[in-house]
Amino acid sequence: MSQYTPTTRSKVKRYHELASYEKDVIHTILDAGFMANIGYVIDELPYVTPTAYWRENDQLYWHGSSASRMLRAQSAGIPVCFTVAHVDGLVLARSGLMHSINYRSVMIFGNAQLISDNEKEARLDQFIDRLFPGRSHEVRKSTELDLKATKILTLKIEEASAKIADEDAPTEDCKEDYQHRCWAGVIPIQTVIGKTLPDPQLDNDIALPEYLKVYKEGVKLDEVLINLGKQQSN
Amino acid sequence: MSQYTPTTRSKVKRYHELASYEKDVIHTILDAGFMANIGYVIDELPYVTPTAYWRENDQLYWHGSSASRMLRAQSAGIPVCFTVAHVDGLVLARSGLMHSINYRSVMIFGNAQLISDNEKEARLDQFIDRLFPGRSHEVRKSTELDLKATKILTLKIEEASAKIADEDAPTEDCKEDYQHRCWAGVIPIQTVIGKTLPDPQLDNDIALPEYLKVYKEGVKLDEVLINLGKQQSN
Repeated sequence: MSQYTPTTRSKVKRYHELASYEKDVIHTILDAGFMANIGYVIDELPYVTPTAYWRENDQLYWHGSSASRMLRAQSAGIPVCFTVAHVDGLVLARSGLMHSINYRSVMIFGNAQLISDNEKEARLDQFIDRLFPGRSHEVRKSTELDLKATKILTLKIEEASAKIADEDAPTEDCKEDYQHRCWAGVIPIQTVIGKTLPDPQLDNDIALPEYLKVYKEGVKLDEVLINLGKQQSN
Repeated sequence: MSQYTPTTRSKVKRYHELASYEKDVIHTILDAGFMANIGYVIDELPYVTPTAYWRENDQLYWHGSSASRMLRAQSAGIPVCFTVAHVDGLVLARSGLMHSINYRSVMIFGNAQLISDNEKEARLDQFIDRLFPGRSHEVRKSTELDLKATKILTLKIEEASAKIADEDAPTEDCKEDYQHRCWAGVIPIQTVIGKTLPDPQLDNDIALPEYLKVYKEGVKLDEVLINLGKQQSN
C-alpha cells in the first residue's frame, strides 16, 4: 500500500485539495525535520510538547526523561496527536483574507507505546545515527543508569495525513482583485545551517568528522535531513 | 507585574533552570515567530493544529474559517494549550544521551474566546500590519462575506512559561566524558528570509513597498519579526 487510509479523524476537511495520504509524501515531510509537536490529554486538559523524533519505516520514535510528565502519561498508551509543520513562505495577496502561508505539514493520530528496555540502546543509537551517520560508535556508550533514566515511545503511522501549500504566487486572489493596484507575491522562508561551533574544550587535533560535513553553512536543513533519510533507507 | 505567576500547570518541572515566567522573555519569544501549535480536546481526543497568530500586549489572536472544526470547538471557550518553539541548534555532546537541542519555547494554557463581529475587521488589519506595517490600507478591503466566513479567537496570556536552551557548547557533558575523544560542539540552525518573488501577474510599475524591505534575503526571520514588534509597541 502506497497510501494511508483516511479515517473520519485524519481526513482533511479544510482545503482538502492540499491534502495527501501518500506514504512517500508523508514520510518526506517527516524526514525533512526532527521536531514534532505532540498533543495529549491529562485530566481532560490539552498539552502540546515540542519533541525531537525519528522514524523507521511506519514507526515514529521519541524519547525523554523517565520522570517527565509527558512520557509518564504517554507510556500508558493514551491517544496522541503528532504534528510536524515546516513553514516555507508568506503569501501576500491583494486582499487581506487571501494572505496565506506556504507550508508542509503532517498530522498523525494514534496511541503511543513504550518500547521495551532491551530495545532502548539500539533505538537511541538509531536516533544519533539518523542525524549523524556513524556517530553512535564514537560517543561514550550509554551506562545502565543513563538508559534507566530514559523512556522511548513509539507510534505507528496509520491514521495520517499531509497538507502542502506551495504557491509561487497568490494565485488564489479573486479574479476582480487582480485590478487592485497593490504589491503581491511571496516572501520565501528557509531554515538553514549556521557555522559549526566546536566546543571550546575540544582538543585541537580532533577534526570535524566526515558525517558532519553535510551540515554546511547556508545549506537548507530540510534538504540535508531528507538526503540523510534516503541514504539510510537504501 | 513584570512576570506571569507560575501555576501547578505552567510551572516548568523538567530542566526548570531553563524556565522563565518574565513577560519580556515570553513576549519576545512570541514576537520572534508567527506560527503556534494549538492543542485542544474534542471528544476526549487531542488535536494539535499549526496556526498563525499575532499578539497585542497580553492578548493572543488567531483566525480561521468559520467552518473549521478547530475554530468551532475553540469558540465554545474550551481549554487550549498554545505552544511556540524556535529551534536554534543541535548540540553534539560526547555521550549520546547528552545530545540536545537549542531552542526557545513558550507554553500558554487558557480558554480561548471568540471576538465580537464588530471587532473583526480591525483585528484582521492588525494582523496584516503586524507583519507588513501599513499594508492593511493598500489591500482590497474585506467584504461582509469575507468577514462572515472568518472567526477570530483570542487568548489572554496568564498561565504562561518560557524555556530557553542556548548552549554555545555541550557544557553539560559529564566531567569524565571530556577525556572521551570525539568531536563535540554546536550546529546552529537559523530561519532566514529568501529572495522575494513578485506575483507573475503583477504590473511592472508596482514596486516593492517600503514596508517589505526589512524582509531582505538572508536576514534572520526572528530578528525581523522582533524588530517589527518593538516598533509597534512604541
